[in-house]
Amino acid sequence: MNDEPVRLLHGSGQGLQLLLNQVVLPSLHIHEKDGPLEDAALLTGLTGTLAFTTDSFVVNPLRFNGGDIGKLAACGTINDLAMMGAKPHALSVSLIIEEGLLFSDLKSFLNSLRQECETAGAAIVCGDTKVVDAGKGDGLYINTSGIGRVSTPYNLSAAHARPGDCVIVSGPIGQHGIAILAARQQLGFSSTVVSDCAALDKLALTLLEAVPETRVLRDATRGGCAAVLNEIADASNVTITLDQAAIPVQPGVAAACDYLGLDPLQVANEGRFVAVVPEASAGKALGALKRHPLGKDSALIGQVELRERFGLLIQTEIGGKRIVEMPSGLLLPRIC
Amino acid sequence: MNDEPVRLLHGSGQGLQLLLNQVVLPSLHIHEKDGPLEDAALLTGLTGTLAFTTDSFVVNPLRFNGGDIGKLAACGTINDLAMMGAKPHALSVSLIIEEGLLFSDLKSFLNSLRQECETAGAAIVCGDTKVVDAGKGDGLYINTSGIGRVSTPYNLSAAHARPGDCVIVSGPIGQHGIAILAARQQLGFSSTVVSDCAALDKLALTLLEAVPETRVLRDATRGGCAAVLNEIADASNVTITLDQAAIPVQPGVAAACDYLGLDPLQVANEGRFVAVVPEASAGKALGALKRHPLGKDSALIGQVELRERFGLLIQTEIGGKRIVEMPSGLLLPRIC
Repeated sequence: MNDEPVRLLHGSGQGLQLLLNQVVLPSLHIHEKDGPLEDAALLTGLTGTLAFTTDSFVVNPLRFNGGDIGKLAACGTINDLAMMGAKPHALSVSLIIEEGLLFSDLKSFLNSLRQECETAGAAIVCGDTKVVDAGKGDGLYINTSGIGRVSTPYNLSAAHARPGDCVIVSGPIGQHGIAILAARQQLGFSSTVVSDCAALDKLALTLLEAVPETRVLRDATRGGCAAVLNEIADASNVTITLDQAAIPVQPGVAAACDYLGLDPLQVANEGRFVAVVPEASAGKALGALKRHPLGKDSALIGQVELRERFGLLIQTEIGGKRIVEMPSGLLLPRIC
Repeated sequence: MNDEPVRLLHGSGQGLQLLLNQVVLPSLHIHEKDGPLEDAALLTGLTGTLAFTTDSFVVNPLRFNGGDIGKLAACGTINDLAMMGAKPHALSVSLIIEEGLLFSDLKSFLNSLRQECETAGAAIVCGDTKVVDAGKGDGLYINTSGIGRVSTPYNLSAAHARPGDCVIVSGPIGQHGIAILAARQQLGFSSTVVSDCAALDKLALTLLEAVPETRVLRDATRGGCAAVLNEIADASNVTITLDQAAIPVQPGVAAACDYLGLDPLQVANEGRFVAVVPEASAGKALGALKRHPLGKDSALIGQVELRERFGLLIQTEIGGKRIVEMPSGLLLPRIC
């Protein structure tokens, strides 16, 4: 039974009931005693400000060193909530399954997803399952949407960086992108780099409790730190100058980037954020981050300055300054 | 520019910025003055019970008589909220675009989606855009998730039907499924049937205000009325007996079903719901529905009885009774 493939007939009626009852619902630990599936979940007791976010995950391949599409789908949405200072409360899970995906694989992806939600204290409260014809998908796409509770009204926005502020990254960069490229086995390189894919909700709240005056918090996913820092610079109308020597990069990532001609700043992360904090709070921020396992290698990597022509510059180790562009989008498709 | 195709490079970095700024955001009427795109939307002022739902739409083809994937994606989620007595408040829009989809087509689908949201008073507050390689999608998949406000705590559930209750359908059945099959142009039949695809939020609230004691409200999408009524019968542990002569079916739908060997009860709708109400409230419910344009052809189609062996039976026009099964799932894939 475990090795049965999903077929088009599992997309509605009796076939869908079977897929839900034998695979989807048990893997997500949703039980019959929880009552019948309704058209929408009812959430009570939520007050104050809520955060709401959505992400579809189309990562290729579905498994990589350090995670799989299920873990990624949970962490991605948990992290988007956390970046706005919200505690993950409820997640939706919507599956687009390509005919041929094995029941056993679907179970294992959904188990990964559920485990991350459990750890983050987010309940999976609603979902949807569609099946598309062979050749009209790529195994599995997962959408997760999330609702988070904002108990303290932090004033976070990509537009809040100010000249003088410090830029911190929560750990070494580029591991997720390199792990995905290695898993594709198409680029003539192998690598032991493990994706940084992780839920950042507790690390983010640790920082925000210690430094409530944090200005910007963004996870550096597609396009890596280069994309997110360019976005912050543009939204805040400032220039950010990075110190290349200060940017944490694991040797395996550095070697793979050298080989592939990539800049680690442009490589995706799925468990790293950048924070912009007032200069006076930088020490406190780093101290708080370093006390948490996921932030132990966090580092102060740059400074916010008055806007110049370009938004993101880097002071290189040989003394020059160069522009770090928003990645073109060509290099690393389907990284998440 | 309008006829430029989406390419893989539009999936991140500069390419994604271009796709968002030139196509996605303007089509959804999201403007730069609304501030930078953050990782999550912040929603304030929501109190009491909230409804939360998600749906991914993989309809094939993307356009059909009476709608397109954009309209469907908005209506589907609006309706799921409405079926729990919620007023649509905020929607997320997450796109999985196959390389090659034209900018102009994407714009037109997003315009359809936005228009339905505007009419329903639901704000599009967050989103995501992914691009997958040619051959790894089917033009466009759209996920929408929605948050709705429940101002009156109606006690709706698929498990609440009781013997003696009446079953009402809000209009003629099967139009959406037949419109999709006709649009596929593969089945050797043409049809002028128009999909019933519509937002049911106002019709549902009209009913609930008139008949707050309504027991069950479900839109009859995948698997049609047969699927949803079987689910209600099982969840409530009752048997529902339909009166075939009372079921509204347009002549074009009846003819197509005859030709294709389909039972209209098993054909999907995207703008029809079934309601189960106490017998004493049936007249009031029908009166309220019939005063609304979307409910003018609503009809009382059956009765809830003590559970027998099978959950759904139909009294045929020639006097017999037969079982109406949950559809197998084989007949009508990718209808929504």
